[in-house]
Amino acid sequence: MSVYSSLGAERPALSVPEWQAAAWCIDHTLLRPEVSRAQVVQLCEEAAQYGFACVMINPTWVSFCASRLRDTPVKTGVVIGFPLGASVTTAKRLEAEECLRLGADELDMVMNIGALKSGDHALVETDMHALAETCHQAGAILKVILECALLTNQEKETACRLSLAAGADFVKTSTGFSTGGATLADVALMRRVVGDRCRVKAAGGVRNAADFAAMLKAGADRIGTSSSVSIMRELGATGTLGATPSRSAY
Amino acid sequence: MSVYSSLGAERPALSVPEWQAAAWCIDHTLLRPEVSRAQVVQLCEEAAQYGFACVMINPTWVSFCASRLRDTPVKTGVVIGFPLGASVTTAKRLEAEECLRLGADELDMVMNIGALKSGDHALVETDMHALAETCHQAGAILKVILECALLTNQEKETACRLSLAAGADFVKTSTGFSTGGATLADVALMRRVVGDRCRVKAAGGVRNAADFAAMLKAGADRIGTSSSVSIMRELGATGTLGATPSRSAY
Repeated sequence: MSVYSSLGAERPALSVPEWQAAAWCIDHTLLRPEVSRAQVVQLCEEAAQYGFACVMINPTWVSFCASRLRDTPVKTGVVIGFPLGASVTTAKRLEAEECLRLGADELDMVMNIGALKSGDHALVETDMHALAETCHQAGAILKVILECALLTNQEKETACRLSLAAGADFVKTSTGFSTGGATLADVALMRRVVGDRCRVKAAGGVRNAADFAAMLKAGADRIGTSSSVSIMRELGATGTLGATPSRSAY
Repeated sequence: MSVYSSLGAERPALSVPEWQAAAWCIDHTLLRPEVSRAQVVQLCEEAAQYGFACVMINPTWVSFCASRLRDTPVKTGVVIGFPLGASVTTAKRLEAEECLRLGADELDMVMNIGALKSGDHALVETDMHALAETCHQAGAILKVILECALLTNQEKETACRLSLAAGADFVKTSTGFSTGGATLADVALMRRVVGDRCRVKAAGGVRNAADFAAMLKAGADRIGTSSSVSIMRELGATGTLGATPSRSAY
């Protein structure tokens, strides 16, 4: 199956190479705590070269990435309350505000999983709503990470409904730091529950072009992966540094 | 080897059962994101029953634990910037302030590992110093988690020296969420570098009384574990609920 043919409503009308259409759906991700500045430099260069939607990094790198990506179409994405989602709302909100102030365009927050398990749906929703409000006031978008590997199917559905009620722009399967990553079944479940009212991001364990295409076919709009460059090469990108697409190509 | 005989300067003069002396060195830990309120209730009950030094929980449970432990000698410990340590200092500091306001007595923060790997020692130290200052103003103590599994021996030494300079009360081996937990070699290295200028906490992978005793012998002052209750039973504690030690026993 062609990756390109899997792209849905967001597919551009103009004809572009398959790898480039795929790149627009990818959050180029580097979240290990031990990554160094040199690795973050490389992440930004790759993102600009291939035209990925976003880099996805920890808060400590936000201002650095936003600065390096200033003259590119690549967004700066950052994780909040990551990867446990078990902080207090005031702390998540301040972390979000600080990241937005430092140049973030997209925030991927982790839901309060323990609160959901405890039946405290009000806390789960207000936690998400605080961040949705913070993001939208700044013109940014919010993705809510459900961490599906830790949830029953009923909890996944509840989490999707609470995310919708809270104003999330995306629901996202996984942090990549738990017992499992994105599954096709979870993406399909999330797509079914949220319909066209918000978007779906699959993350965790997407390692090659076949995984990538299958996730899109199951209903994902965006893919988070650390294997972005090898997926680009599988799809025929040349990988020559310096071939940065200009903003006008978007 | 007796656990009791491993206890150093902090050993009380009065004669107490071996399990009780051991309990005073234990941070009773429950950090998985999916734990429910019922599991946190149980954690607090066990901590009060055996007289553990501290419960160690995520920020979302701080006010709940502080309230439940109010009439016991058990401290409320909470993790900050956990487990990646890769947030910005302003966010870590606000999270710390909020947890102290909600009743925390001890904060276990994760060092900015990527900054250390990038040679940005000033950032590593100011990050720790901000939290040490915040803790000490509130009469709380700060433990700095180095995440030794991700560091070279030279980086571990540097991290210990920066922790001392920043005013940390403890250096701690591990989060329990990385590629490895506490090792005897790391505890000995940390003890050697910090001397008697700060204390050492071993955490991650301490599962039984033999592990526990070996960590104390290697130089640890405090042990973080989720296996606290089974360690107590190995050491002869009866485990009868309601046998809560009174504050006067301390």
